[in-house]
Amino acid sequence: MQFHHHGYVSGDPRVQPAAGIGLDRPEELPDEVDVLIVGTGPAGMITAAQLSMFPDVHTRIVERRDGRLRIGQADGIQARSVETFQAFGFAGAITAEAYRITEMCFWRPDPDDPRRIVRGERPPDDPTGISEFPHLIVNQARVLDYFAEFMGNSPSRMKPDYGYEFSELEVTEDSDHPVRVTLVHTAGEREGEEKVVRARYVLGADGARSRVRDSIGCTMKGDQAFHAWGVMDVLAVTDFPDIRLKCAIQSGSGGNILLIPREGGHLFRMYVDLGEVAPDNKGEVRRTPLEQIIAKAQAILAPYTLDVKHVAWHSVYEVGHRVTDRFDDVPLDQVGTRTPHVFIAGDACHTHSAKAGQGMNVSMQDGFNLGWKLGYVLTGRSPESLLATYSAERQVIAQNLIDFDKEWSTLMAKRPEEFEDPRQLAEFYVQTAEFPFGFMTQYPPSMIVADQSHQDLATGFPVGKRFKSAPVVRVADANPLHLGHQHRADGRWRLYAFADGVPGEASALASWAGWMATGEDSPVLAHTPADGELDAVLDVKVVYQQRHDTIDIGTVPALFLPRTGPFELVDYEKVFATDPEDDIFDLRGIDRGGCVVVVRPDQYVAAVLPLEATEELAAFFRQHLKDLR
Amino acid sequence: MQFHHHGYVSGDPRVQPAAGIGLDRPEELPDEVDVLIVGTGPAGMITAAQLSMFPDVHTRIVERRDGRLRIGQADGIQARSVETFQAFGFAGAITAEAYRITEMCFWRPDPDDPRRIVRGERPPDDPTGISEFPHLIVNQARVLDYFAEFMGNSPSRMKPDYGYEFSELEVTEDSDHPVRVTLVHTAGEREGEEKVVRARYVLGADGARSRVRDSIGCTMKGDQAFHAWGVMDVLAVTDFPDIRLKCAIQSGSGGNILLIPREGGHLFRMYVDLGEVAPDNKGEVRRTPLEQIIAKAQAILAPYTLDVKHVAWHSVYEVGHRVTDRFDDVPLDQVGTRTPHVFIAGDACHTHSAKAGQGMNVSMQDGFNLGWKLGYVLTGRSPESLLATYSAERQVIAQNLIDFDKEWSTLMAKRPEEFEDPRQLAEFYVQTAEFPFGFMTQYPPSMIVADQSHQDLATGFPVGKRFKSAPVVRVADANPLHLGHQHRADGRWRLYAFADGVPGEASALASWAGWMATGEDSPVLAHTPADGELDAVLDVKVVYQQRHDTIDIGTVPALFLPRTGPFELVDYEKVFATDPEDDIFDLRGIDRGGCVVVVRPDQYVAAVLPLEATEELAAFFRQHLKDLR
Repeated sequence: MQFHHHGYVSGDPRVQPAAGIGLDRPEELPDEVDVLIVGTGPAGMITAAQLSMFPDVHTRIVERRDGRLRIGQADGIQARSVETFQAFGFAGAITAEAYRITEMCFWRPDPDDPRRIVRGERPPDDPTGISEFPHLIVNQARVLDYFAEFMGNSPSRMKPDYGYEFSELEVTEDSDHPVRVTLVHTAGEREGEEKVVRARYVLGADGARSRVRDSIGCTMKGDQAFHAWGVMDVLAVTDFPDIRLKCAIQSGSGGNILLIPREGGHLFRMYVDLGEVAPDNKGEVRRTPLEQIIAKAQAILAPYTLDVKHVAWHSVYEVGHRVTDRFDDVPLDQVGTRTPHVFIAGDACHTHSAKAGQGMNVSMQDGFNLGWKLGYVLTGRSPESLLATYSAERQVIAQNLIDFDKEWSTLMAKRPEEFEDPRQLAEFYVQTAEFPFGFMTQYPPSMIVADQSHQDLATGFPVGKRFKSAPVVRVADANPLHLGHQHRADGRWRLYAFADGVPGEASALASWAGWMATGEDSPVLAHTPADGELDAVLDVKVVYQQRHDTIDIGTVPALFLPRTGPFELVDYEKVFATDPEDDIFDLRGIDRGGCVVVVRPDQYVAAVLPLEATEELAAFFRQHLKDLR
Repeated sequence: MQFHHHGYVSGDPRVQPAAGIGLDRPEELPDEVDVLIVGTGPAGMITAAQLSMFPDVHTRIVERRDGRLRIGQADGIQARSVETFQAFGFAGAITAEAYRITEMCFWRPDPDDPRRIVRGERPPDDPTGISEFPHLIVNQARVLDYFAEFMGNSPSRMKPDYGYEFSELEVTEDSDHPVRVTLVHTAGEREGEEKVVRARYVLGADGARSRVRDSIGCTMKGDQAFHAWGVMDVLAVTDFPDIRLKCAIQSGSGGNILLIPREGGHLFRMYVDLGEVAPDNKGEVRRTPLEQIIAKAQAILAPYTLDVKHVAWHSVYEVGHRVTDRFDDVPLDQVGTRTPHVFIAGDACHTHSAKAGQGMNVSMQDGFNLGWKLGYVLTGRSPESLLATYSAERQVIAQNLIDFDKEWSTLMAKRPEEFEDPRQLAEFYVQTAEFPFGFMTQYPPSMIVADQSHQDLATGFPVGKRFKSAPVVRVADANPLHLGHQHRADGRWRLYAFADGVPGEASALASWAGWMATGEDSPVLAHTPADGELDAVLDVKVVYQQRHDTIDIGTVPALFLPRTGPFELVDYEKVFATDPEDDIFDLRGIDRGGCVVVVRPDQYVAAVLPLEATEELAAFFRQHLKDLR
């Protein structure tokens, strides 16, 4: 955490100096904004939190409710999300209050007495070390609280505008603020009154029944599985030994339970299989009484007892798998001919079962993908065409999610005797772990993802996938750190220069640094705003192959020791060495001849290039960043 | 973190349900309180934070200033303090914003050209792994903020009463509230007016010029070293390569600098040697202008440059080493004949140089030692005689601190040519590291520390020293955890039963657990208040020798799975297994025949006993806990 460079900061350094709109942010929702976000769920809140780091952009996020969410349905937090929270500064805090999944237990009928269940496989949750972050369970309401805290502490001092329901919108291309949105007050003195807001861009993060989606003519396509589940968050006493472990339980009586322990050490969630539903029975199953769900759970758990003491929340739902064919207001046959002004994200785009704990996670990655792009376009750093990459990148992910979840939830609903091998469910779980952990996403080449022609220079940083962190040592203060954890959600691009040779001697790295600092086509010189610091857009760091105590900081190129703040102090936090016990060059297959790894603001690897390929690097950035000289 | 067991908690689980005084805490300082703490420095704030977990005790903490401290002098946070912060729930958060010391560099005159300095030794800060917690630098003001947050979230909803200066106190034994304290309003409409508060107990944590100390007739004894130092917190540009490392710099010109990098990546502190001071020159050296301190620093750093851009704080002080002979109002010749009602802590008891970064740390351990004792006496759990152990335990520690600091600060002020071996300073630093890290404290046998006759059963938990944590796995949820990190600052005693044998089979552990649950002389039955939960005073946990996945939770004695809250839910968080990669039995030298380790509320090991020694265990607790049956 860097601070004090504008003078002594007495209070919490997480509260950043106000800037831009944060200096005088209107308390009331104004008539004109840059970005209007509809809905304060995970997709909307992460987008708002990311945009709060662009204080020159006036973003507002409206919500139908009159205050914060008190209890949400989603609770599964995959490791990729915790990695994302790290960038927003709350991975540690939320982990401390969450339930952590380290194993999953598979229970099934005792072959000797199918009326009883017995424990089968017990695989570790992350056997291959996909991530250094944990797999958590914590209520969505707390995730939203942390994003709210982040945006409140941001330079924009953003907070949600509660008590506004979305009514309709209209795009009129003849205006600076082409989207005319009609909202309705849902609370207070003006309840029922309309409020019109004109916005440059609108994001509909307004859930499965999204009216923003409807207003741009998008429809959800997919099936309805006609399989019903009851879900309940309960406090109970039981002699079932694995009540504090995630379990898939298949009983001989044909029922299934997915058991999810919850934060706090006592609460747990049960998804209880209510069986096939006749197509004409749709309404009826939703009225299944709580008592019946509990009785069903008790039958499945036999011979173990379940004495339910308190139910915090419950619901009945049918599994559906539906996705929209686009995530913005540009019909597929017009892509490339005009740029979008309205976007949708999260449940507004994809709905599916809750079984794989994916919804909140994929929704947050939707928002993390879109937020910085809006920020770049609205601050004049990038052309509007950048915005088309959002739908292009995320719609495919949503389709993958639907396909995966369909397979998993179908398996979960299968009767034990339908499996060829009783271990099949556990095997599928283990084999496909990378997907539910959130790390299968790989964006294809585009204006913001280079091709893989130099992938062999850093085999552990696949282009298009998220940057997988590794340990390094910061040279100036000998601090062992995780390189990727230094990536804050501040909207900046990261360039990691992995050095050849030795600091102070002629090397490809030294030449590259010289070109970046002074070269005619240097992306730093081309794309940094005139009033910005040298690292305002491109945050360039170096990782040497040597031990930290052999590197003389005085010989490191000035590019990596930029001056910062009104006192022009040296920023010492961009120069790293290898951790001899865990050499990042070995861990991530980095060529000892060095290379450059470019990482997007949303943590995805955008390019791997040789240090010599300056022209290619410059050309890559020219595709999506404007020349601001 | 355990919650939801009284029903669903929607908000931040760190905000505990209000209880006792927290249900209706008077906004204004009342006329009568249980405990009055004078001073909101580290010693006072940790005591208040600890007492805030005793909501049946009405504690107030008054402060002369009209608000929070904005910039404090202390900044060194030893690992023992971070361990303590873990118990108060903010070790992670404060580490994230602190500077972390991992190495120390020793610079001295270049033998070939004494006008230049060169780098000598560069030892790691904690080469032997004394603690799993880091050594940090962070301003005292932030430490106080975190304690304030903790007490605000506590059941007592405590917050400091700002704007009251201590004037005098009088102890009148004829009252329930025998201490009559006169305060003076320092701000607001009533500025200058007196306010009398009657208290059962008073803590003077009012600094080196403590008036509470004076009022109980204590005096500071010790020397004045007649060696002056300038200290400054600066933002500067320099080519000195180790500016972000802790350094002891000895120049050929005879000057010395202790360099302490500060949090935020830019600020650093320099203690600059101003040399010997003639005894009659006392006032004059204190007026040394900032420019002169900077010039001296520049001379010492040569040939490196130091371009100071901004000075956040500076001061000149002389090293003194002084300590009081008692920490309470009972003169030494009356100890044992009456119990104390007034205590002093922190700088009020011990003052010394800032060189070893000890002051704030030792002061906090003073308060952590006293807080729970006041809580126990005031809630009727312990006899008043417990309070005499505070002065008995802490005065010795203060004397040790003074002795250590005298040696270290004298070495720091030595001229290079006075050393027999230039490596002497670095060697002293490395050899004595356990002391400044805060882990040398070992309380002698007393009513709350047993003798060491069974120490061989757990050689890694020395009786009287702080409980050194080790990894374990929680059985119910397969979570790898650090056992000691589960020790919250909630005022409870911990009993760790290290198991012999296998759960479910006859064993010494099973017998012990049976006795604890039902035995006539069981400490749990004797000392738990009638209206308290089974673990309200004694938090009993078990650690098995086996792997977690071989332990059937159904066979674990009920003692370790107590019922909790209105729904009588099972508390699953007291049953642990060994981490096969880091077996706590091996790491801490625990006898495979099992044993009981008793840990005090302030994290010190109070006793190591065989599982069979039930009578000894019962007798130990009877020494300081009342039979509440």
